This record gives sequence, C-alpha cells and structure tokens, in this order.
Amino acid sequence: MNRRFLLMRRPHGTPVPEDFALVESPVPSPPPGGFVVRNHYCSLDPAQRGWMDDAPSYMPPIPLGDPVRATTVGVVHASDTPDFAPGDWVMGLNGLEDYSVNQAGGFTMKVDPAVVSSPSQFLSALGAVGLTAYFGLLEVAKPQAGEVLLVSGAAGAVGSAVGQIGRIAGCRTIGIAGGVEKCRRLVEDYGFDVAIDYKGKSVGALSAEIRAAAPDGADIVFENVGGEVMDAEMLNLAKKARIVLCGLISEYNSPEKHGVRNLWPILTQQATLYGYLIMDYAPRFGEAGAVMAQWMAEGRLRIDEDVQVGLENAYPAFMRLFSGANTGKLVLKIA
Amino acid sequence: MNRRFLLMRRPHGTPVPEDFALVESPVPSPPPGGFVVRNHYCSLDPAQRGWMDDAPSYMPPIPLGDPVRATTVGVVHASDTPDFAPGDWVMGLNGLEDYSVNQAGGFTMKVDPAVVSSPSQFLSALGAVGLTAYFGLLEVAKPQAGEVLLVSGAAGAVGSAVGQIGRIAGCRTIGIAGGVEKCRRLVEDYGFDVAIDYKGKSVGALSAEIRAAAPDGADIVFENVGGEVMDAEMLNLAKKARIVLCGLISEYNSPEKHGVRNLWPILTQQATLYGYLIMDYAPRFGEAGAVMAQWMAEGRLRIDEDVQVGLENAYPAFMRLFSGANTGKLVLKIA
Repeated sequence: MNRRFLLMRRPHGTPVPEDFALVESPVPSPPPGGFVVRNHYCSLDPAQRGWMDDAPSYMPPIPLGDPVRATTVGVVHASDTPDFAPGDWVMGLNGLEDYSVNQAGGFTMKVDPAVVSSPSQFLSALGAVGLTAYFGLLEVAKPQAGEVLLVSGAAGAVGSAVGQIGRIAGCRTIGIAGGVEKCRRLVEDYGFDVAIDYKGKSVGALSAEIRAAAPDGADIVFENVGGEVMDAEMLNLAKKARIVLCGLISEYNSPEKHGVRNLWPILTQQATLYGYLIMDYAPRFGEAGAVMAQWMAEGRLRIDEDVQVGLENAYPAFMRLFSGANTGKLVLKIA
Repeated sequence: MNRRFLLMRRPHGTPVPEDFALVESPVPSPPPGGFVVRNHYCSLDPAQRGWMDDAPSYMPPIPLGDPVRATTVGVVHASDTPDFAPGDWVMGLNGLEDYSVNQAGGFTMKVDPAVVSSPSQFLSALGAVGLTAYFGLLEVAKPQAGEVLLVSGAAGAVGSAVGQIGRIAGCRTIGIAGGVEKCRRLVEDYGFDVAIDYKGKSVGALSAEIRAAAPDGADIVFENVGGEVMDAEMLNLAKKARIVLCGLISEYNSPEKHGVRNLWPILTQQATLYGYLIMDYAPRFGEAGAVMAQWMAEGRLRIDEDVQVGLENAYPAFMRLFSGANTGKLVLKIA
C-alpha cells in the first residue's frame, strides 16, 4: 500500500493535526513515459508551511487533498521510460508519501549514492539547504575576508552552513539562536566566533549584545528568522551592509505579519536587502555540490541532520521546525 | 541683527512650537579664513525631522540650542578668504537663520544665479531634491523603457520629479498621493499615467487599486512614505523588482515605527531594496544639474516650489511637510 500524508485544510496560524490526514491507497503504476519512486527520505522545510497557504508565492499552493509537497530522495520502483530504471536513486519534488508518481519530462534527477555517506545528504549538504547557504552567502552577499557576518537562525540547517562557509571565506561570524544549548553548538560544533541567545530579550537588549560583539556593525546579515531578531539586527548595520533575506520563520505561522520595524537604518546605512531564492542558481548546483562535498571531506564543513522516522510521525516531525526543537537539517526517514 | 530659529528640545513625535525658539543675536563676523552668508532661501525637508532626534543617523543630531540645520542659498555678506567675495551667491549646509558662519574649508559652494529663474531653484531642481530624484531613479533603480514605476509621495518634491524622470526614461508611471487635488496634479501637472489616492483606504483596498493599474506588478518602487502605503506596494512587486528606499515620511513623527509588514513578497519576488542616500553621487552633481536644467528648458520637467515667507513662520512652514498641505519643494524665503 501507499501511505500518504495529505493536506486536508489550510492551517490557520500554527498547523494542527486535524489539518492533515494519513491515508492508504494502492501503489500507483507508472504513467506513460514516467515512473514511480519509492521515497526513502523526505525533506521537512519551513517553506512547506508557506505552500500550505492559499497565497501568492513562488510556487502554487498545495492542493487540498494532495500529499504535502516535499523534496524526497528515493529509488525508482517501476518505470515506463528508459531514462530511469528500477533501482536508480533519484531526488525530486514529490510528496510526503511512500510512492510518488513522476510524469514524463519532470524535474526529478538521478543521484549517485556513492558520493554520500547517507542518501539523506542529498536533502541536506548537497540539497537545497547546503546550496541555499552556499549561493546566498557567496553569490548574493559576496563576503570579503575580515567582514562581520551576522546570521539569524544560526543553529538551523541553513544558518549553521552559512556560518561555516562565512568562516571559510574569512569572515568574523556571529550567530543568533534560541537557548543555551544551541548557542553552545554554534561555537563548538559550527565554529562561530560569537553566539548570541535571543531568548527572553527585548529588541534593545538583543541589539546591545550584537553591538558588543560587532561595535562597527555587521557587513552582512543573513536573515532566516525575521521578527524582533531582525529588528535588533537592523540597529547594527555597517555602512553599505548587505542583507540576504532568505527566510522569515518567526512569522510563517502568524496571520499578523511583524515585518521589519527598523527600516530607517537600512536607508541611513545605505544597506541593500536582497530577496533571495535559490532557483536562479540551478545550473550551478553540480559545481557547488562538489565544493561542499570537498569541504566536508576536509572536515571544514559539518552539516548536521535531524532524522525523524516514520510517515506516521510527519506532523510532530514537521512541528519541530517551529517549536525550536530542531537543529540541523530535518528529514523524515520513511523507508 | 541675526534672527535664528533654534532647536530647544528634541521633539517627541510631532514637533510642537515649544520645541523651538526664535532669538536675535548680533550679526557674526567671519572667522579666520572663513566667511558669513546672508541666507535668502532655506530648504525645508523631511530629513530635518530626523536630525532633531538624538538617534544614530547619517549626520549627527542638531545640538540643542543651535539653529535648525538647513541647506540654504544666499549671498556672501563678509569674508576673510579670497575664495569667497561679498556679493557671491553660494549654497551650503547652514541653518534657519539670517546669517550663517562658514568656517575655512567647509562644504559651501558658489552658484551662478544666471542659470536659474530664482535662486530657490538651487534648493529644488538643481538641489538635493532634483538630484535625489535623478540619481535614485536613474542610477539606483536603472529603469528600462516599458517598465512600471510606482512612486509614493508622488505629489511631493522628490516624488513628482521621479515620476517625470521616469516618464522621460520610458516607464509607465503610477503615483500614489493623498487627496483628490494632489491626484489631479499628478496626472495634469506631472504627467503620471495613473494617480492613486491612498486616503481612507485599507492596505487591501490600496493594494487592489495598484493591482488594477499594474496587473503584472511594479518593476520599480520609489519609496518616500513607508507605512501602510509601502505595505500595499509590496503586495504588487513584479519579479526582481527594485525598491529605492528614499524616505519614510509617514513615520518620522511616530516614536513607534511601523516599518514594512509585508517582507515575504520581497523574498518570493526576489526583489532588491536599496537604502539610498544621495551623497555618493556628489561628484556628479554638476553633470546631473545640467541635464535637469535642459529638461526644464525643454518643458519636459516641472519642479514646483512651495515658497513660504519669513523666518518667523519657520514652524508652520515646516509642519506643512507632515500635514499633507505641501506640494512641490518647500522653501522658506527669509530675505
């Protein structure tokens, strides 16, 4: 049977279990020219929360009654095309389900399991997470050695990679995260120069801590969080700072948007804020993946994974992204 | 005597008359190597409100007890330097006062009254207002013919110039302003293709009006206002839109900053927001002024002035910027 985790209604704010349903249906057959993938690992990402809303975005909303859209890595189960043979490992945009149908001419690509220690790495270091960090920092922010890099959500999958790549690029790295344990990991596991705990702090108090760590301000802000954390960051911009707007996890579940209150310093510091999606860099994914793999092999880059198990745990696993429980790239192992 | 309009305390929110004092003191003598200017026209700008706060900005706050800082145009009254002779017309950063002392090596420059129809034009078309519009649009946003340009504060001094320069660059221009009369002027006097009145409208209603005028979104947003007007604009960004953050007049008088609530569309549309100050372009002011003068002579560019009279009217004149009474570049004639 094919277990499928469906979106049954659009969440209002924080998703609740009743927004979803786990159902079983027969294992599908390949369509003409297409194939069926047995998913092994499913990526759980903040972006999925956005796809659940019926709002304009860079992708259409997940249709109600469809499985929750997810990038997965798996094995071809049955095929009607010579391009994909049963047993091939593939990665693509599928869903939270055991088996996904791939139409002819889709975007799924073959991957080589020999280059990774676990196929889940195609969803982390060599997937959207690692590549989002790579291109967002190196191509959008263009760091120079000696610059100050300030990262929010720094213990998260993207944030921890950004900090380490920034360090490789010669930046002084300051990470913001929630809680003592995450801050310990920023310094000990990911090599941040400074870790700042935002929990329980006003914008003013957080801003003062940032200023103490970077008296001349941040040359680069890599924004994953938004909200009051971003407000505090904006009070600490160096002249001509670059802000990479990569995510806003603090407000994905809130119908009332906080936005950023401190716009004036962006103007006076002549900063530039870049709305950033990774898609434009797709032609260079291979090149970047090779560099990331090399850095990992050299021990200069560590991409942690938070592997949860079982499609029946999709809801609590997904909620780890928003509760602060998650560190590292969250994946759901379903086979 | 030298009448001087002093900042006596830092305004809390909207300035009140008691924040200022008009005093008289003797006419100053030139310092060694410097000179004294008899100010004729003083520029009144939203930026002055920011200088009154004791907050980090691109210039130090106006010291309490000093005249309110202002760009002025006037005539050299007395001089201790061969570089400036009595009778020379000059422009510089002085204050709301009859006579301003210029130290040796300052930034005041000579101007040629023969190239303008009134010396006040050195504060409008050929001053910071005209040049802010010129460089902000042409150099920061880099418009292409056929693009949609959305301008807030479009009846204001900078906004009306931006719209006209955008039209010269081949853009379809949409101006947002407050009230029927200003909207009439946008179309009839400044040649905007569409005028939208934001008064009394929710973010959703304003956004819908923008969408009706630009179904594919704005390629360029020239932001002078901020607040809910900006929130509505952000819901109407074309892919890879450029946002020039030039001013935030809606929040200069509010201690509680609204900021921009709709950050998410900046990310999903891969837009770029540029914090913009004109200073970097100072070496090119002459070149730009010549182009602006040419456009005015050809009747393609109209820079209106709102000339108020008398230093004793400095407070009510300044408040015209915030009450919505002002259209065109606001100047105070004091001689």
